[in-house]
Amino acid sequence: MSADLEEGPDLQLDFSKLANASQPQVLPCAVQDAATGEVILVAYVNEAALARALETRSAVFWSTSRNELWEKGATSGETFDLVEVRVNCEQNSLLYRVRPRRGGICHTKNLTGAPRNCFYRRLDFDTGALVHLDP
Amino acid sequence: MSADLEEGPDLQLDFSKLANASQPQVLPCAVQDAATGEVILVAYVNEAALARALETRSAVFWSTSRNELWEKGATSGETFDLVEVRVNCEQNSLLYRVRPRRGGICHTKNLTGAPRNCFYRRLDFDTGALVHLDP
Repeated sequence: MSADLEEGPDLQLDFSKLANASQPQVLPCAVQDAATGEVILVAYVNEAALARALETRSAVFWSTSRNELWEKGATSGETFDLVEVRVNCEQNSLLYRVRPRRGGICHTKNLTGAPRNCFYRRLDFDTGALVHLDP
Repeated sequence: MSADLEEGPDLQLDFSKLANASQPQVLPCAVQDAATGEVILVAYVNEAALARALETRSAVFWSTSRNELWEKGATSGETFDLVEVRVNCEQNSLLYRVRPRRGGICHTKNLTGAPRNCFYRRLDFDTGALVHLDP
C-alpha cells in the first residue's frame, strides 16, 4: 500500500475491489463506535467471522486480502468489544456497533502515533481533494 | 424478496451477495444520517454514481441488482442531501453522510407506514433471533 494512496490528497478509489475478492462469500459490514456514533471501518464478514465475533463478543472480520479470519487487534492490541450486530432489510449487509478497548481501528496512525479510525479523510466538494480530519 | 426475509426473526444472511454482483466495479458505501449518527444503509457506489452524487449533492448509488444508477428517492420522494463523503485508508470503501429531506431510506415501512432506516433489526446475542427496533 503506497503512502500516497493512504496519505495523499488525491482520490484514487479502487473500484476493482470486489472483482478481486477471491473469497466472495462475504457481506460488507459497517463498523460504528457505539459511544461516539462515528463510522470507523467498512470490512467484510463471512459465516466463520460472524460466528467467531459472536463467540468472543469482539469485532472479527474476514480479510479478503489475506483470505483469513481477521480478529481485529489480535496482533496490534487494538481490540473492540462487540456491543450490537444489526442486519439490513435484505440481509445482505451488516452493522457492527463496537466499543474500543484501547484505540483506533485503522492500521494507519496520526502524527501523534495513535491509530486512527479508517474514515479520516473527507472529499472536498469544491476541489475534489481529500482533506485530512485526523492528520 | 420474501416477507420472512425482511420481516421475520430468523437470521438468513445472503453470503453470496458479492459473488453474484454482475457489476463488480463498485465500492461498498456506508450511509450515515449526519444529524443522528445512525447508520441507515450500506450500498454500492461506482464511478458514475459518485460523479452523479457530487453533481447533485444527493445520495446516489449503483444498484447491483438492477445494474443501473440508483438516484435514491427519485421515485419514492425520499431523497437525501449529501452532506459529506469520506474515504477509508485504502480507498476501497466510502462513507456518505447524508441529511434526509423527508423520511427513512429503506423500501420497507414500519407499522405507521413510514419508511424505515435499513438496519432496523438487531441480532439477539442470546437467542440468535433478529429483534425489530422499528416494527
